[in-house]
Amino acid sequence: MAAKNLKVMFIGDVIGTPGLKMVGLMLKGFIKTHQIDFVICNGENAHNGKGLSLDALNQLLEAGVDVVTGGNHTWSNFNFFDTLKTHPKVLRPLNYPKGTYGRGFGIYPLPGGLGNIAVVNLQGRTFMYPIDCPFRTADWVLKQVKDQARFVFVDFHAEATAEKIALGWYLDGRVSALIGTHTHVQTADERILPKGTGYCSDAGMTGPFQSVIGMQTKSATDRMLYQTPHKYECAEDDVHFSAVIVALDAQTGMTVGIQRFFYPEFEKGSL
Amino acid sequence: MAAKNLKVMFIGDVIGTPGLKMVGLMLKGFIKTHQIDFVICNGENAHNGKGLSLDALNQLLEAGVDVVTGGNHTWSNFNFFDTLKTHPKVLRPLNYPKGTYGRGFGIYPLPGGLGNIAVVNLQGRTFMYPIDCPFRTADWVLKQVKDQARFVFVDFHAEATAEKIALGWYLDGRVSALIGTHTHVQTADERILPKGTGYCSDAGMTGPFQSVIGMQTKSATDRMLYQTPHKYECAEDDVHFSAVIVALDAQTGMTVGIQRFFYPEFEKGSL
Amino acid sequence: MAAKNLKVMFIGDVIGTPGLKMVGLMLKGFIKTHQIDFVICNGENAHNGKGLSLDALNQLLEAGVDVVTGGNHTWSNFNFFDTLKTHPKVLRPLNYPKGTYGRGFGIYPLPGGLGNIAVVNLQGRTFMYPIDCPFRTADWVLKQVKDQARFVFVDFHAEATAEKIALGWYLDGRVSALIGTHTHVQTADERILPKGTGYCSDAGMTGPFQSVIGMQTKSATDRMLYQTPHKYECAEDDVHFSAVIVALDAQTGMTVGIQRFFYPEFEKGSL
Amino acid sequence: MAAKNLKVMFIGDVIGTPGLKMVGLMLKGFIKTHQIDFVICNGENAHNGKGLSLDALNQLLEAGVDVVTGGNHTWSNFNFFDTLKTHPKVLRPLNYPKGTYGRGFGIYPLPGGLGNIAVVNLQGRTFMYPIDCPFRTADWVLKQVKDQARFVFVDFHAEATAEKIALGWYLDGRVSALIGTHTHVQTADERILPKGTGYCSDAGMTGPFQSVIGMQTKSATDRMLYQTPHKYECAEDDVHFSAVIVALDAQTGMTVGIQRFFYPEFEKGSL
Ligand SMILES: [Fe+2]
Ligand SMILES: [Fe+2]
Ligand SMILES: [Fe+2]
Ligand SMILES: [Fe+2]
Ligand SMILES: [Fe+2]
Ligand SMILES: [Fe+2]
Ligand SMILES: [Fe+2]
Ligand SMILES: [Fe+2]
Repeated sequence: MAAKNLKVMFIGDVIGTPGLKMVGLMLKGFIKTHQIDFVICNGENAHNGKGLSLDALNQLLEAGVDVVTGGNHTWSNFNFFDTLKTHPKVLRPLNYPKGTYGRGFGIYPLPGGLGNIAVVNLQGRTFMYPIDCPFRTADWVLKQVKDQARFVFVDFHAEATAEKIALGWYLDGRVSALIGTHTHVQTADERILPKGTGYCSDAGMTGPFQSVIGMQTKSATDRMLYQTPHKYECAEDDVHFSAVIVALDAQTGMTVGIQRFFYPEFEKGSL
Repeated sequence: MAAKNLKVMFIGDVIGTPGLKMVGLMLKGFIKTHQIDFVICNGENAHNGKGLSLDALNQLLEAGVDVVTGGNHTWSNFNFFDTLKTHPKVLRPLNYPKGTYGRGFGIYPLPGGLGNIAVVNLQGRTFMYPIDCPFRTADWVLKQVKDQARFVFVDFHAEATAEKIALGWYLDGRVSALIGTHTHVQTADERILPKGTGYCSDAGMTGPFQSVIGMQTKSATDRMLYQTPHKYECAEDDVHFSAVIVALDAQTGMTVGIQRFFYPEFEKGSL
Repeated sequence: MAAKNLKVMFIGDVIGTPGLKMVGLMLKGFIKTHQIDFVICNGENAHNGKGLSLDALNQLLEAGVDVVTGGNHTWSNFNFFDTLKTHPKVLRPLNYPKGTYGRGFGIYPLPGGLGNIAVVNLQGRTFMYPIDCPFRTADWVLKQVKDQARFVFVDFHAEATAEKIALGWYLDGRVSALIGTHTHVQTADERILPKGTGYCSDAGMTGPFQSVIGMQTKSATDRMLYQTPHKYECAEDDVHFSAVIVALDAQTGMTVGIQRFFYPEFEKGSL
Repeated sequence: MAAKNLKVMFIGDVIGTPGLKMVGLMLKGFIKTHQIDFVICNGENAHNGKGLSLDALNQLLEAGVDVVTGGNHTWSNFNFFDTLKTHPKVLRPLNYPKGTYGRGFGIYPLPGGLGNIAVVNLQGRTFMYPIDCPFRTADWVLKQVKDQARFVFVDFHAEATAEKIALGWYLDGRVSALIGTHTHVQTADERILPKGTGYCSDAGMTGPFQSVIGMQTKSATDRMLYQTPHKYECAEDDVHFSAVIVALDAQTGMTVGIQRFFYPEFEKGSL
């Protein structure tokens, strides 16, 4: 009998306490309902909206997350650096320069005789920082993991749609799925690329939507109106859960199904 | 008897000849099937992927588009400037500095006794150019149009999700709908904001998806791999039609229904 | 008998305590030796290298400075906002959007029957923030001050040489002098433009040069090597005084002499 | 008897035909007067202000230049790529990603028994492109050249003063001299760093100064006033020659004298 497919849920940037509470409250139910085998979650905003902390990390793991990925805000909380250096379940973008704390990929065992999954965290450069090339870093890491993992999942933390899509094409057929993060807005372009890689430009954010990408609306708007610093304060209300679910073929490792997940739905009325 | 609602289709950035052909082939059918009353279309990439031309503009209008909006690429084709100065159905972002060619908003009559619709084109500044403030320009234009138009539709051409969402909140209850363009990726955050404004961060692109946001994949990837100039060439294959449809209340002008539109669907398999 | 010319010293960005000490120690002597009539000083880095404070402002004024200008870092110290709103001798860039605290120009009486000098603070946008246009703001402010001040001095706080030079040409013959700040490196392009405006792209910094533009070398270099946050710490050693002196004609207000000032000289050896 | 020191002239970005004519007319005289042994020249703007061409390269070499370095504009002229791949006397920044055409350093024989000089071209990333790290690339190239060249000269083509200064400190004592280019404005911070490296943030441009960094003033200003494209046209008038001369010790290779060179002087009047 053929092994069943692997179902992976990838949760977009979790924002502060509201996001952590939502994950704590709902994830186990979603895992059960959707028969999820493995959960990856971007945690770069879990500590009060900026950075990560050991406490926030533990809340995510206890809620059912298997691996926590990061992004540019991983470095925002100086107190997290010791955990970042040593904790096996937290990743930061791999293509930060040599000498940077933490690890950028990991290989994790799967239940049900499915072998291992490699989780790779990369970051874009357009409108961001001039770190190492994500394309070339991807080439490198695939060599490292190919003999050890049947499945390869990439969280590509990037701003520009062009960079995300280009890396999607670059890795089509070479990784199980590549899902983007960082913009905090879920994109509607989830698809299976021609050679079998599941792709979605952004998984969106899990946190308060009565906000500007997680930040209180007034401060965020004042920053734009006046172009002067206004204190970051994490918003609290209208919390939603954003994720993408992929079903990966047990033999080939490639995506056979991809579906966005957003709960609860926004108000859309009817035409 | 109450007047029927107004149904507006907003088509995201049309890319070159493939995009123009798709619009020419399909739009009239969509208008009929979905009972669309008014069609707005972003045309900044209609001329070979960069800028607009009188010929491309005419193709869009003949296909059933009522007003063509623009963005940063409106200025890419120097030969279009005469048309831009005088043609009543083409707009460019209003918040370009005083002295810039063309108009940034227009008031257009509607069928069926629904009065007028104001169409406003604005552009963001984050990761783009330091033009005038889109928030303050929006305040100004709303004073100009409020007595003349029951409906106000905004195309906000911007890169950063934070800027788009902030302007959405800023204009909630003051405009019928605000839909974003420029990233060429449709976002899944369409919603009716609490005070009645229809909102979606990006309508996505209408054009070839065997590409990087419309550009041939190899050139686009080479730009990122080598950081040197590589010629822009418009892609051709896998053309899709991306839009957002809003239903606007005939009395209040506010959104009562919002729906994304993407045709044909991507391959997603099943979970 | 013709009135004597007006001699203005403009001191570039003063960096933290080392910079304040240097100004306190040397300025009165320089004023005497060079027969300076009026001293303007950019203070955006006077408070520990980032922002300004009432205490730092008072140290500058007591040292002999007449007016303190600012830049993007003026907003870095939230505790300074009350002083910024009310103190007549501190300026911030005028072309921040309406509603921003503080004033962007002032008119100050001169000794010796020379009437008034208008001091205008502007900021560039290239590689900085999308504030109001410095060119158009300059047009506006010149109308405000022309009847009240014979001399007009502009501190143009900007990153890009192109923007600085363009504004220099734009204002040639319309202001007494335009001197740049912000890069913390003195430029060797001081000159009298054809219509009489004194110009220099950057006055340089007054502070510790055993540093990277005032910041401790290791932290600054680590930011570049790792692209992660490293705490800003003000450097301390090798303090130099950077300024530009202009002599302005008492009748026309235009520059008749311009000279860079850097003390003590760097080690240059000999050819 | 001790060998005499090596005198190197480094000419800043040569701008189009006016810059080429100035170099052709004056360089041989300057070489003679100042007893220059070796001439390096940044040529990224020699071809009509944007990029390089075989013809412009030959004009520079015939005028007395020994090696021509480049920068971001090296890639602006597609017709130059064949020459760039093969010509031994033209360099482009070394830290462009692997696979990019051309070479980034060269080792050249010196007259008078002085052995070899290595010329290294690097480019910054702040406000520019995310190419490879200039600091790490410098480490790498110094290993390649240390046994073959007594003298190492670096042209660091970069925008941000912080990045230039940081690399200066990073290489102090490890290279003979590091001189910056790209801003087209000569800086007044030439010095000998404590461990013997000659340093200047920017050599300035050799070309028409009735311009905005070489471009016609009206087009350059219109770009800033309107934020729309305006055709680049090379300016023509008020041509100056900008360079930095270093004297390098024959034994240690370190700088024993550094002097800016700007001809003819600007109008400065007198205090
Ligand atoms: Fe995030
Ligand atoms: Fe992020
Ligand atoms: Fe577009
Ligand atoms: Fe655009
Ligand atoms: Fe400063
Ligand atoms: Fe500054
Ligand atoms: Fe240049
Ligand atoms: Fe350059």
